[in-house]
Parts: sequence; structure tokens; C-alpha cells
Amino acid sequence: MWIAELSRRTDVPVATIKYYLREGLLPPGEAVGATRSRYDEAHVRRLRLIRALVESGGLSLARVRGVLAEVDEESRELHEVLGAAHGALIPDDLVATPESRLRVDDLVADRSWLVYSESRDRLLLAAALDALEKVGYHLDDELLETYASAATEIADAEVSHLPTDDRQRTVEATVLLTALGGPVLLALRRLAQQNASAHRYGTSHLPG
Amino acid sequence: MWIAELSRRTDVPVATIKYYLREGLLPPGEAVGATRSRYDEAHVRRLRLIRALVESGGLSLARVRGVLAEVDEESRELHEVLGAAHGALIPDDLVATPESRLRVDDLVADRSWLVYSESRDRLLLAAALDALEKVGYHLDDELLETYASAATEIADAEVSHLPTDDRQRTVEATVLLTALGGPVLLALRRLAQQNASAHRYGTSHLPG
Repeated sequence: MWIAELSRRTDVPVATIKYYLREGLLPPGEAVGATRSRYDEAHVRRLRLIRALVESGGLSLARVRGVLAEVDEESRELHEVLGAAHGALIPDDLVATPESRLRVDDLVADRSWLVYSESRDRLLLAAALDALEKVGYHLDDELLETYASAATEIADAEVSHLPTDDRQRTVEATVLLTALGGPVLLALRRLAQQNASAHRYGTSHLPG
Repeated sequence: MWIAELSRRTDVPVATIKYYLREGLLPPGEAVGATRSRYDEAHVRRLRLIRALVESGGLSLARVRGVLAEVDEESRELHEVLGAAHGALIPDDLVATPESRLRVDDLVADRSWLVYSESRDRLLLAAALDALEKVGYHLDDELLETYASAATEIADAEVSHLPTDDRQRTVEATVLLTALGGPVLLALRRLAQQNASAHRYGTSHLPG
């Protein structure tokens, strides 16, 4: 396809595609004559991945470049690549209290979760617990365990749904599902909260 | 307590507290002499609620005012107040395709969830599904059902954990947990994803 169709298929402006090509984020197309190039499905997928990282993950182009370098490094183990792509979606400036970090480490150990000790996901959870404490809400162990059990069911289903035929596709699906599956889950939780609230507190109105 | 302690307890600057007092978002303290006022625990809780709405929910002060008006309207049913507080955390400019809206309506009907037909939570879910479709990822029914089941467990536990002794506290806890519990859940999901990925793809490194 020509660049115009690539733009239409991915909703990324031609000028932006050209910028990504210059910056090396997107591999060049197949040259046809002196000034035109043809692009293929791999370009469509790569552009969608970049877009998901930038728009949903809020990543800088420098970090996107780092993730893409991991994806393209064929010698790396897939699990490591997924970890790097995953980690790139976490902001740099996270801080958490030692108490919350310890609580997270205990939870990971109790569940025998295979998570690197230096994983930034641990810090992300600790910071999220701190944010609740800061407004005076302590998330008790029972509710935290319910969250953790539900998260396990979700993650197991997500990982078993990842495509296995192609390394690039696996990494792309991981990033897209991590970045864009979260809002789906949170929206479902809100609907389920409404339902639970209606059952607990009652309502004089019939649901539509 | 004096305003300085109120500021220290809530991490909200004195100038901001004075602004909220002028704007009527925070009820006045008990006047002590001509220029000083004393504040109590209700002020601490109200400030934390405003802060959670503004900082985590990203709400404008006008919308915060709307939520607080609902909270303070004692004649409203609790379930309605919770719905209004909940709805305020959703951005105004949401749009979704008819296909996704229909998919959400079907899911709500299949599960017999008590959710108003005009609930903006439905739109939030439809928009989240659209965002995935837009980058070429279709969330299949099986994974969506897994999300919905996990969301149900979570929401049931959350709503059963809400305090019942005091209407204000119930609403506050709903808002705080909806706004700040989400990041906790998503961080746990990431840890569980790492674990699932390690089990599926293997890793040559021992977890720490």
C-alpha cells in the first residue's frame, strides 16, 4: 500500500508517519522508483503499536524507541521482551513508602508469583496503595486479596489469549491489552459496582 | 483544629482551603473571635474527598460542586447519590460506536445487572472497547466474560466493604475506592500478568 492508505488504515497523519520513518521508529517501505515506497501489514501493526504506546501509555518517543528495540532484538527471550514492553508503560517518577513496598513484597511472596524483585510493577502497586492511604483510606487485607485473586484470573486469561504464532504479534498484543484492556476492566467494575450498590441499598426506580 | 493543622492533616495548602471556603465547597468552621475559626474531622474528610475528586478523578471544581451537592442532599436515596458521585468521575466528551454500545447493553442484560439504561458507565465501557478495536485488537467474548466475572467479584467485595454508619462516609469511600482503587487493581493485574507470562514462556532467570 502507499503511504496514504497506511495513514488511512492506522489513523496516523502522513506527516507523522514520515517523522517516524526519519526517526527510525518505523522501518522503511519497499522503494518503488525514486520517491515512492510501498508499505505492508507489518507497517500497519508497528504504527498501531507506536500509537498505543504514545497515546494510551503516554510514552515519550525516546521510551517508545527503547520498547521497539527490545521487540526487534530477536536474541532476547520472549518473557524478557514482554517484561520490557510492560515496564515501559510505567512512569519514571514513581515513589512509594517502605511500608507499602514491604506489603507488596509479602503479597508477591505469599502467592509465589514469579515477578523479578526489581520489577517496577511492584513499585506501581505500592504507590497505588500509598495514594489511598494518603486520602485516609486503608485498603484492608481482605479486599486486597480479593483484588489479587481477580487479577490472577484476568491475567491468566489474558496471557492464554496472546497469539503465539509470531513474536512481534505477541509483544504487540501484550502492550495493547495492558494499555487498553485496563479501561475495559475498570468500566466493567463500575457497572458491577452500580449493580452491587442497587442490590445493597435498593432503588425505587426500575432499571432500564 | 486551626486551619494550619487542617492543612497539615490533608496536605492541602492553606490558600487552597481558604479558596474552597470562599467558594462554598467546604463549610465554614466554628468562628472563634473575629478572625479565627476551628475545624473538625468532617472538614478533614470533606477536603480529602475534594482532593480525590480533583486530583485522581481530574474533575473541574464545577463538577466537584455538583457531586458535593448530591452528597449533601439528605433527601436523595443513597443509591442515587452514589450513582451521581460515580458518574461525576466520567469525562463529558465520551463517544462510542453503536456496535460497542449494543455489545455493552447485551452484556448488562445477560448478567441482569441493575444499571440504569442511561448510565454513563455503559458509554465508558463502549468507548474502552472501541479504543481496542481502533488499534486492531478485538476483545473476544470469552475474555470479556472473564473480565466481567472478575469485575463482579471485585465490586461485590468493594460494596460490602463500604461503611454503613454514616451517609457522608459511604459516599466518600465510594468515590475514593472508585478513583484510587482502580490503579491498585491494574497494578495487581500487571504483577499477575508477569507471573502468567513467566509460567507460559519460561524464564532463564530466577525470580528475586
